[in-house]
Amino acid sequence: MAIKYELIKECKQSGARLGRLHTPHGIIETPIFMPVGTQATVKAMTPEELKEINAQIILSNTYHLYLRPGHKLVEKAGGLHKFMNWDRPILTDSGGFQVFSLGDLRKISEEGVEFRSHLDGSKHFISPEKAIEIENALGADIIMAFDECAPYPADKNYVKNSLERTTRWAKRCKQAHKNPDTQALFGIIQGGMYKDLREQSIKEIVELDFPGYAVGGLSVGEPKPLMYEVLEYTTPLMPKDKPRYLMGVGTPDCLIEGVIRGIDMFDCVLPTRIARNGTAMTSVGKVVIKNAKYIEDFEPLDPNCDCYTCKNYSRAYLRHLYKAQEILSARLVTYHNLYFLLELMKNIRNAIKEDRLLDFRKEFFEKYGYEI
Amino acid sequence: MAIKYELIKECKQSGARLGRLHTPHGIIETPIFMPVGTQATVKAMTPEELKEINAQIILSNTYHLYLRPGHKLVEKAGGLHKFMNWDRPILTDSGGFQVFSLGDLRKISEEGVEFRSHLDGSKHFISPEKAIEIENALGADIIMAFDECAPYPADKNYVKNSLERTTRWAKRCKQAHKNPDTQALFGIIQGGMYKDLREQSIKEIVELDFPGYAVGGLSVGEPKPLMYEVLEYTTPLMPKDKPRYLMGVGTPDCLIEGVIRGIDMFDCVLPTRIARNGTAMTSVGKVVIKNAKYIEDFEPLDPNCDCYTCKNYSRAYLRHLYKAQEILSARLVTYHNLYFLLELMKNIRNAIKEDRLLDFRKEFFEKYGYEI
Repeated sequence: MAIKYELIKECKQSGARLGRLHTPHGIIETPIFMPVGTQATVKAMTPEELKEINAQIILSNTYHLYLRPGHKLVEKAGGLHKFMNWDRPILTDSGGFQVFSLGDLRKISEEGVEFRSHLDGSKHFISPEKAIEIENALGADIIMAFDECAPYPADKNYVKNSLERTTRWAKRCKQAHKNPDTQALFGIIQGGMYKDLREQSIKEIVELDFPGYAVGGLSVGEPKPLMYEVLEYTTPLMPKDKPRYLMGVGTPDCLIEGVIRGIDMFDCVLPTRIARNGTAMTSVGKVVIKNAKYIEDFEPLDPNCDCYTCKNYSRAYLRHLYKAQEILSARLVTYHNLYFLLELMKNIRNAIKEDRLLDFRKEFFEKYGYEI
Repeated sequence: MAIKYELIKECKQSGARLGRLHTPHGIIETPIFMPVGTQATVKAMTPEELKEINAQIILSNTYHLYLRPGHKLVEKAGGLHKFMNWDRPILTDSGGFQVFSLGDLRKISEEGVEFRSHLDGSKHFISPEKAIEIENALGADIIMAFDECAPYPADKNYVKNSLERTTRWAKRCKQAHKNPDTQALFGIIQGGMYKDLREQSIKEIVELDFPGYAVGGLSVGEPKPLMYEVLEYTTPLMPKDKPRYLMGVGTPDCLIEGVIRGIDMFDCVLPTRIARNGTAMTSVGKVVIKNAKYIEDFEPLDPNCDCYTCKNYSRAYLRHLYKAQEILSARLVTYHNLYFLLELMKNIRNAIKEDRLLDFRKEFFEKYGYEI
């Protein structure tokens, strides 16, 4: 077995889980947020900076790396860890989500998905077997099964067919997987916003016995209360002794609400993407640094933050860098946003330890403001 | 006096100068290359990274900071050092060169230069007094007089008028300068490619008694041998007890040849600009990282380099980052290029110490290749 999940305790106030995930590249304390390094780099950051802010694991994208530079090149380089100079755990997605959202002219069949590259229009075909071949070549600690993520809204029949295909594909992924001792293959639960379909998907996927499970098909445009409702009836049916990963979620409110509903792992491009657009997540809510009100604001980005950016630079300087389109703008705000979310996860873990996660949620949102 | 230049020794083989420049923000070992931080940031670098690679002093641009964010804002922030989080020496140019090269619709008169901003077309007027007012507000350790840099080629009469105006402007700059005890104002020698005009300019500018002198009007498109020839008859006439700064020069060959001809300080955007275009300066010559021959090259950028980039990343990875337009590409190649030039200057200083700078030049170019 490549990984082992250790449930340390459940919060008496909220039921949230505190755990440890043992992987070939080290131990991850959960619940955790995973910064996204789409193209074998977390945009604007070095690996050393990610360690400085205590990133325990990062995510990278199979679809992007397959197209550029190609998984065979990464394999020749000694695998993704060596290629990108990151010796802590990595999770790769299966490319399924990107094939549907970025690939052009996609054609789905039982065999797999045909699509055109968003880079050069070239034609490609990814099947469950191909996705696993790519993920095996990349060599991440955790790899994801190739699934179909139904859009929102979608009618029940579509979602049912899609989840059943996802189950059949999950079986094929498991069979194709060459390195179960060094790479943990996670199954993905689908079923859209339909309770009975989620139950069906959990039953089918868990029966295949994966070392971890993701909740897919959420954060696809549905209202947040609906996402929370789905989690409420989904996670209690998932195995207690395996990690649970909610894909594509990374706002402070969704992280806290997700943990309260039994999630252990999250990822999202949001904190890094909005950073490059000059938006910071801070303890007092979002700061849009380009706003004129920060022209002569010599206070730090977040008055309650200890990160490198907040210790050394003013909002006025950050605004100047953003307006002048300087690379340092993306660097400093990205650094802060990731620090902010990783600190949030640490505080969440501490609150679970102390059985007071619901109190923590209340305190946090009193300052941050609650987003629906 | 804001600064003091200490001549330590002259190389017996080449006549090159080894010195120390004492400034309000620390001692600079000369000869030195100054990385350029046009808009209050050396593009893609943090101040800490600049210290890691032993940058002793950086240059920032008056024209750019005047237009954005404005010198008054920088002054309110506590000066440029504090604004950008850099506590080592800074040199600001006077904006003269940029007004001529970037400003639109410029009109030169005895009073100063009227121009339109390259950012928004707004109309501005910079006089010698205004340039110094801006530089005083920015608060750099070394500030430059407002001069007129004649283009190349230019007829003798034009260059003569221009250098004489530069002398009159230098006087006005000196008179306008409010902080001679904390900011050293350098005079700039003009005179184009005409020996007698250079002699005239040196005589007039040196008579005004500045704490340091720059050679201006070179590296403006003339052939390199012509630049070397001008230096050969210019520097011997400059005071020995003051630092000599060759403006806008930063290729390895020009740095070595400039030092041999008695120059102590250099600056240039070249190493940082070509880095963002994926070109590295290395001990074996230029490496254009996007070239297909590096696709599967798992060697470091420069096999003889100890910098962070070369210790941790392969050419294949750097090529991938460049092709994928990742910010980390600009970061890693910029870091390497500046490290390379600062190491070159350190090796030049050591060669002067050991009276073997001409031998060093020969050895260096046997590997690097000589560029005319």
